[in-house]
Amino acid sequence: MTDLIVRPLRPEDASAWHRLWAAYLDFYDTSVPAETYDITFARLLHGGDPNMGCRLALSGGQAVGLVHFIFHRHCWKPENVCYLQDLYADPAMRGRGVGRALIEAVYAVADSRGTPSVYWLTQDSNETARQLYDRIGQPTPFVKYVRG
Amino acid sequence: MTDLIVRPLRPEDASAWHRLWAAYLDFYDTSVPAETYDITFARLLHGGDPNMGCRLALSGGQAVGLVHFIFHRHCWKPENVCYLQDLYADPAMRGRGVGRALIEAVYAVADSRGTPSVYWLTQDSNETARQLYDRIGQPTPFVKYVRG
Amino acid sequence: MTDLIVRPLRPEDASAWHRLWAAYLDFYDTSVPAETYDITFARLLHGGDPNMGCRLALSGGQAVGLVHFIFHRHCWKPENVCYLQDLYADPAMRGRGVGRALIEAVYAVADSRGTPSVYWLTQDSNETARQLYDRIGQPTPFVKYVRG
Amino acid sequence: MTDLIVRPLRPEDASAWHRLWAAYLDFYDTSVPAETYDITFARLLHGGDPNMGCRLALSGGQAVGLVHFIFHRHCWKPENVCYLQDLYADPAMRGRGVGRALIEAVYAVADSRGTPSVYWLTQDSNETARQLYDRIGQPTPFVKYVRG
Repeated sequence: MTDLIVRPLRPEDASAWHRLWAAYLDFYDTSVPAETYDITFARLLHGGDPNMGCRLALSGGQAVGLVHFIFHRHCWKPENVCYLQDLYADPAMRGRGVGRALIEAVYAVADSRGTPSVYWLTQDSNETARQLYDRIGQPTPFVKYVRG
Repeated sequence: MTDLIVRPLRPEDASAWHRLWAAYLDFYDTSVPAETYDITFARLLHGGDPNMGCRLALSGGQAVGLVHFIFHRHCWKPENVCYLQDLYADPAMRGRGVGRALIEAVYAVADSRGTPSVYWLTQDSNETARQLYDRIGQPTPFVKYVRG
Repeated sequence: MTDLIVRPLRPEDASAWHRLWAAYLDFYDTSVPAETYDITFARLLHGGDPNMGCRLALSGGQAVGLVHFIFHRHCWKPENVCYLQDLYADPAMRGRGVGRALIEAVYAVADSRGTPSVYWLTQDSNETARQLYDRIGQPTPFVKYVRG
Repeated sequence: MTDLIVRPLRPEDASAWHRLWAAYLDFYDTSVPAETYDITFARLLHGGDPNMGCRLALSGGQAVGLVHFIFHRHCWKPENVCYLQDLYADPAMRGRGVGRALIEAVYAVADSRGTPSVYWLTQDSNETARQLYDRIGQPTPFVKYVRG
């Protein structure tokens, strides 16, 4: 897909970003209040929160995917690590490299900050996503627990 | 275990903390350089890095366990979340509530900061730890991937 | 001035904020590149950078003033302090309480975060501003040096 | 002074650092509680708070001076600035380049982080200090106000 562009989030992307993220949250059967959209948008904007970032994928000038990432401390190493939290590609664009391009964009940002460790979490039953993840990353034996 | 005390890390705990953390890392067949011990110790000290913390468990005045935790952003909510990264109890003390007391101490810190979401990762084969985690937390279907 | 409203910065304030801040910078015979406008705007937005904030003053629905503030560490106390960096009121509105309302809004934010120490810097020859500052704050004998 | 060494703060410097900082605070007719010593020490340690740092000057193996610095946001530029907050040289060592060496060490740290703007505040009546500052930095017309 030669016309795919991946770039940081800008103020004028608000409605496109909102649409894509809502679709992503919907996939996880969840939603967030309007105020959280506003706050997270401000943090993800280019230049916003120093520990957060977003890349938008555009094809033919239309936003077709997004990725959100967060930098945080790690006890085992001096530098931060990068948590790739949200990844979404428009279903109409699946199989055309949007997901891979977005993950590779996060790798590039992480490298440029001197924090090359990138990780993410996925549902073990999400076979579609894992087909991509198994090619671009590595599964680990770690499972997530939350406070009861 | 009535004499168990859980408290923040202090400068004078350096050698006890080093011993316990080394044992923890050894359990994961890993190790970190001396400089990482120094840097992480400084960050975990009471008052150190604003997004990191440690609690030490003491019994009879001896350090018998530790927990490390990290606060970081989350796209889905305005407040931070708390990642409980390292948890260790001296094997000689197992079954006496050290692990539970340390996790509950993290819950209390997280609550006091207005960031009650606490999570952690564990190897799916770690049945001993999961017996405790299934009582004090909840497993999720999420598995971890790392950059390939 | 009973219709004065002071509130956090929102995405839709971009052009009004740009106009006011440019006027402020012009007063100091300076300017910043377009990219700095974008980055600082993202950081100042409600929910943006956790250590920065902005309040806009509006009268009759029109933006008539702004204040920018930054929280940072201080060696002498556990909590952060608040540096009120930029303060501007439309000259047409001078003498109507805009500056005072904006400074008091910063005091309120600082109090709500448990970091009540607020300070700012001003040119010693700026008599107009100092008339207000002498009423709402206190001068100190400290002068600023910069790297040569 | 050929034997002067300037290096980051280490855990074993606790008592020497305490002595020097107490002398500095005493010069300003102030003091801080024991807990603030502990918290600030943890933050200033090499690897502690990511936005704070300390350099100690040693001569003949003895600590003879210190400097504390803080990085924070600035609305006028994308990168942080560096606030050199505390600078102290043992009076017995005055005139031997300790102060200059410490300030230059801060300049070097600031440069290495890509935040070369360094500033500090001093009492306008502090003629001794200003003799040095006028050589290594530049005075500005800015005076400090604090919340009333």
